[in-house]
Amino acid sequence: MTEIHPVLLAGGTGTRLWPLSRASYPKQFVPLVGEETLFQAAARRLSGAGFAPPVAVTGAAFRFIVSDQLAALGIAPGAILIEPAQRNSAPAVCAAALAVQAKAPGALMLVAPCDHAIPDAESLRATVLAAVPAALAGRIVTFGIRPDRAETGYGWLAPEAMAGTPPWPLAAFVEKPDLIAAEAMLAGGAHLWNAGIFLAATHTMLAAFAAHAPQILAAARVAFGAAEHDLGFTRLAPGPWAGAERISLDHAVMEKAGNLSVMPYDGAWSDLGDWEAVWRAGTHDAAGVVTHGPATAIGCEDVLLHAEPEGPHLVGLGLAGLVAVALPDAVLVAPKARAQEVGRAVAALREEGVPQTDRSRRDHRPWGWAERLASGPRFQVKRLVVHPGGRLSLQSHRHRAEHWVVVAGTARVTTGDEVRLVTENQSVYIPPGCLHRLENPGRLALTLIEVQTGSYLGEDDILRHDDAYAREAEP
Amino acid sequence: MTEIHPVLLAGGTGTRLWPLSRASYPKQFVPLVGEETLFQAAARRLSGAGFAPPVAVTGAAFRFIVSDQLAALGIAPGAILIEPAQRNSAPAVCAAALAVQAKAPGALMLVAPCDHAIPDAESLRATVLAAVPAALAGRIVTFGIRPDRAETGYGWLAPEAMAGTPPWPLAAFVEKPDLIAAEAMLAGGAHLWNAGIFLAATHTMLAAFAAHAPQILAAARVAFGAAEHDLGFTRLAPGPWAGAERISLDHAVMEKAGNLSVMPYDGAWSDLGDWEAVWRAGTHDAAGVVTHGPATAIGCEDVLLHAEPEGPHLVGLGLAGLVAVALPDAVLVAPKARAQEVGRAVAALREEGVPQTDRSRRDHRPWGWAERLASGPRFQVKRLVVHPGGRLSLQSHRHRAEHWVVVAGTARVTTGDEVRLVTENQSVYIPPGCLHRLENPGRLALTLIEVQTGSYLGEDDILRHDDAYAREAEP
Repeated sequence: MTEIHPVLLAGGTGTRLWPLSRASYPKQFVPLVGEETLFQAAARRLSGAGFAPPVAVTGAAFRFIVSDQLAALGIAPGAILIEPAQRNSAPAVCAAALAVQAKAPGALMLVAPCDHAIPDAESLRATVLAAVPAALAGRIVTFGIRPDRAETGYGWLAPEAMAGTPPWPLAAFVEKPDLIAAEAMLAGGAHLWNAGIFLAATHTMLAAFAAHAPQILAAARVAFGAAEHDLGFTRLAPGPWAGAERISLDHAVMEKAGNLSVMPYDGAWSDLGDWEAVWRAGTHDAAGVVTHGPATAIGCEDVLLHAEPEGPHLVGLGLAGLVAVALPDAVLVAPKARAQEVGRAVAALREEGVPQTDRSRRDHRPWGWAERLASGPRFQVKRLVVHPGGRLSLQSHRHRAEHWVVVAGTARVTTGDEVRLVTENQSVYIPPGCLHRLENPGRLALTLIEVQTGSYLGEDDILRHDDAYAREAEP
Repeated sequence: MTEIHPVLLAGGTGTRLWPLSRASYPKQFVPLVGEETLFQAAARRLSGAGFAPPVAVTGAAFRFIVSDQLAALGIAPGAILIEPAQRNSAPAVCAAALAVQAKAPGALMLVAPCDHAIPDAESLRATVLAAVPAALAGRIVTFGIRPDRAETGYGWLAPEAMAGTPPWPLAAFVEKPDLIAAEAMLAGGAHLWNAGIFLAATHTMLAAFAAHAPQILAAARVAFGAAEHDLGFTRLAPGPWAGAERISLDHAVMEKAGNLSVMPYDGAWSDLGDWEAVWRAGTHDAAGVVTHGPATAIGCEDVLLHAEPEGPHLVGLGLAGLVAVALPDAVLVAPKARAQEVGRAVAALREEGVPQTDRSRRDHRPWGWAERLASGPRFQVKRLVVHPGGRLSLQSHRHRAEHWVVVAGTARVTTGDEVRLVTENQSVYIPPGCLHRLENPGRLALTLIEVQTGSYLGEDDILRHDDAYAREAEP
């Protein structure tokens, strides 16, 4: 049996789910429905019997989020490709095809967005496996969702006929339709939604690029051939990558290829494209109320109340048709029907210079992550989690003092010439100017609370003297 | 000229402005409109030429909030009366009358709620001063607001006639009317709103109690006569106080007294009774949008967005007729028209056991205050502000370690037998079991960040060995 190599497209930076999804921490990396993040759910969904380790494609800013989230699942990636710049999905899929082919010539690849909700993983896997013979026979199989409403936000698929054993040959892609066209397709019963999932042999996929997008294939070949490999990442060469056309896979290849087939998928599916879609994908009570986290709905109808475990308690009273999202640093309230306009709100906030527009509370680093918990005049409090073996740079600060309180695990702390172990409940003081380094020498995650004090607490007050991760600009 | 002794009724625990107003920190102590708290604004409004130091009446839980907030204004109180239990306004006013009479026999007193908004302080003072001759002549003068809508939430006043020089004799109190009656009174132009502000000589007020509420007067006399005086507070005797009838001043006395006069007040006034009233009292843009703190309204109409400086950024998109209030630990969203039902939401939250129902982030203590900033598994972070001269109890904890980081000011810290000064940017570690005490020996406020660590962080893990403020139960 030929193994399927999942290709997880994890480079998106959508803001229609702001404040949960931000440019610095987009929605695929957030636990939006359920306990796992969408990316983790996608990786887990496409694992197990018949599936090879996944190839993830993402931006440099997200590389440690991707590696951390896979590690938390115990999934070793086949490769993590880093796009030096966002070029939309066609170049990303092309580079992934080259990576899979380099590893397992002739293997099958399954291109999958990883910011969608597909709750019945087993059913999806069975559907994918049922499409393998067609893929082995040289078809590109796309997966079509049974529509249950006249959705104008999706592309639709027109199979030649929806009879006989699927997959069926595809007659046409239908770009996002207007409402009248969508209603006609829904009523006709001869169309499916395009889920953006594709199964094909790598050589079939690369042949399609050669035929319909040769410029992208050429650029991706050079970028992949000249890629740098460090810390488990495959960093595509920036120069050639910048030359690849910025275009979606559908536009560049799929709408032109003649060898597409459609496999219908009957299970639940959502693109979680905006807050209304999140509401739709949630578990409703009799009044259409969906809550997440510490939230209380009183006399509400058709409402989504989304809160987070350590964030504020969210209370909706007498609301109808609304979405409210309450995070520790940002709150959004909007009518469900205007959920698509959240991008507009984000643009307005960016104009205002609101830091929460793009920046999230949590920053991922090669050594773990840091989260801003609180700040006020002359102080800032962060939670730092350092992975086993993680090592912050040797650094100093001109203006601020730092106080580290170990909450869990053991820290190895260098201050000046002294190196010592600091265990749970103990603390360390680092005065301004003191050369210091934090490491986790243990086998468990190290959690500590950092209190910064001083009159200037800007992120740029960091002098880095030595770094295990060869970073320059970032903290 | 006879001085007027303001009587500030500051014992209320209203929750219709939840989450801003909570049982542990009610609305009068919060900066709801403007920089100062409502209580501070009331105290400042009734100060200056012609006004004696105020007598505040409040509950034991709020005594340090009252003394702190007056101290911040530089106002030395005439007295702070502590009600051992809430008995509504009649007993509170009666006790205050006794306190004023004990200090300045025959003086005038001005009873004033301190959770209302009266922006034009000068105009109010002038109106009060214009009523002094009537009060000296034995009248109880109530102040009437010119109505601008058919408000069913207020009591109304019917002067005998609204002609000639005010104050005018009062013909009748009208209890909260129905809409038809309110519309008729508004159209007739012969009624005013009852603002709950009364000016009278103390002996006039006490005579009214003697005539109409002798039981309250008797109970208040005993409770005041047996009051304990400590730390500047006058603690009414609990036993007799518990015997005083629980009733409002209007019901007990004012509706029965024959010597009332009405002084019209033409300035702006709001009881800030619910979030709709807060919206009404705010500064509107052309679309009727009122924002407070870090809030952004995009395409909104008739909306109140209320956020706080260190809290989450609040964004409203495309909202109409809504109120959204975002605090660091709680968020409320409700239609403006259902603002009166917030009490219902609070009751539901109490049933759910949500701690934010009644408890606020900030706890006032005799030595200053403590505010919960963040918490998570095995840690809790608080900000402590200790007044100059403030002294926490000598205490120890069985389970938690504490780490104090001084942000501003100087701390005197006792740990075991050692006493030392800790200055800005320095920190102290207090292991579990260690006897410790924190004091502010300086002339400036001491601010520190406390990080608690351990597996049990409950408030009850405190063994108090010695306390400057004679506290037993509270932390």
